[in-house]
Amino acid sequence: MERYLKIINDTLEEALLCVTRPAVLNDAMKHALLAGGKRIRPVIALAAAEAVGGDAIDAKYVSCAIELLHNYTLVHDDLPSMDNDTLRRGKPTVWAKYGESTAILAGDALQSLAFAMIAKTSEKRPGDLAKILNVFSEKALGVVCGQVEDLSRNEQSDYDFIYEHKTADLFVAAAQMGAIAGGGSEEDVNAIAEFALNLGLAFQYEDDLLDGDSPWGREETVRRVDETTSKACIALKRINGDTSFLSSLANKLIGRTF
Amino acid sequence: MERYLKIINDTLEEALLCVTRPAVLNDAMKHALLAGGKRIRPVIALAAAEAVGGDAIDAKYVSCAIELLHNYTLVHDDLPSMDNDTLRRGKPTVWAKYGESTAILAGDALQSLAFAMIAKTSEKRPGDLAKILNVFSEKALGVVCGQVEDLSRNEQSDYDFIYEHKTADLFVAAAQMGAIAGGGSEEDVNAIAEFALNLGLAFQYEDDLLDGDSPWGREETVRRVDETTSKACIALKRINGDTSFLSSLANKLIGRTF
Repeated sequence: MERYLKIINDTLEEALLCVTRPAVLNDAMKHALLAGGKRIRPVIALAAAEAVGGDAIDAKYVSCAIELLHNYTLVHDDLPSMDNDTLRRGKPTVWAKYGESTAILAGDALQSLAFAMIAKTSEKRPGDLAKILNVFSEKALGVVCGQVEDLSRNEQSDYDFIYEHKTADLFVAAAQMGAIAGGGSEEDVNAIAEFALNLGLAFQYEDDLLDGDSPWGREETVRRVDETTSKACIALKRINGDTSFLSSLANKLIGRTF
Repeated sequence: MERYLKIINDTLEEALLCVTRPAVLNDAMKHALLAGGKRIRPVIALAAAEAVGGDAIDAKYVSCAIELLHNYTLVHDDLPSMDNDTLRRGKPTVWAKYGESTAILAGDALQSLAFAMIAKTSEKRPGDLAKILNVFSEKALGVVCGQVEDLSRNEQSDYDFIYEHKTADLFVAAAQMGAIAGGGSEEDVNAIAEFALNLGLAFQYEDDLLDGDSPWGREETVRRVDETTSKACIALKRINGDTSFLSSLANKLIGRTF
């Protein structure tokens, strides 16, 4: 884990060097990125590369891209017209510290920078760039679709759609891109995507249980945790490699034994 | 021109098919895109492909990506915390019609969709995807840098930086990507980028003259129009192909003979 976090934080610092001017934009982006997130998604990307027999370092740019994208969504989610949050992880949110317009633009720049990091993956595996960019742009769009659907929650809302896109899409992108960057076979990439989809859903259901607030009610949510955890576990076993780290990470996130 | 506009509008419609749910997101994106812009940047991309000897149709996805990106910046620029505009081209802006949060997310989705269109360029020229993605992500980031610098305009502002990034970057990206997608040589791609940079600057200076408001004053701005127009003209002549369309487009935009 320490090793993964070092790769992630070093690559995020490298990414921020792409934005030297204006200084306030760099500051706002750094504030968003270095506020102490758990780095779950980029860790999944690096671990996925290793699980399929590759090197974690080969997935450093895709893992960085995922974290940049995740953070842009948080910066925009916190805005006054969205969740109107002034604090995140005990620190002022980007808009609370730098103003609303700078926060909108810092989020925009984090998304652009995420794609700039995807461009860098071509240095190592030029032939896989199209595959990686396809996954990333599709899921980047998916997250926004999930968020828009979530904003208009009502009796008729399709919560399966919201959970899949708002939460699970970035887990899937992380795992899939990490596995591609690690040189995984198509079967392994598909299996790890299946694992990540179910892990992401289980993670969100657990979160709802902890909050005591779920659209399906407690009993059905517990059933869904069991079902997705079991599907994630089965998918992980299809992978032809050492999946012990991913298994223990899933265990920590969902509080179940894999 | 008609032929170019048909390619652009057809490809934009194809792009919007990627966002079917939620319907309101598709509506908001369509509202932004189909409000009757002049399509200058995507036209430059298609014309650049032809100027270097390629087919315009080969540049349809890069031209669509440029227009999507340009429109996301407009949607975000219009927001209450930015320019607070309720009308654009005589119609309500996206936030005025769909609300602020949907407008922020529609802008975000337009940026993601732009990169999804870049991914599609690999179908025709897989080997050039890395080059195209590098140009596009760098300029996408540049536009935001220019906009942040512009928001904090003061006596010390570096207007050259603002004009280069806020305005010229997307002209350069359009021309460069169009030329790459059209199979242009490195010399031709560089020459067309030089042409587009100077065209973009001249276009912005002319705009300032029309508004009667320029940070450099009227006399210096007229001098700059002449200088950049002349540089654009010289760059265009370096291209080994039929540049008559680009020449007449520049003529229309800047009101000078090339």
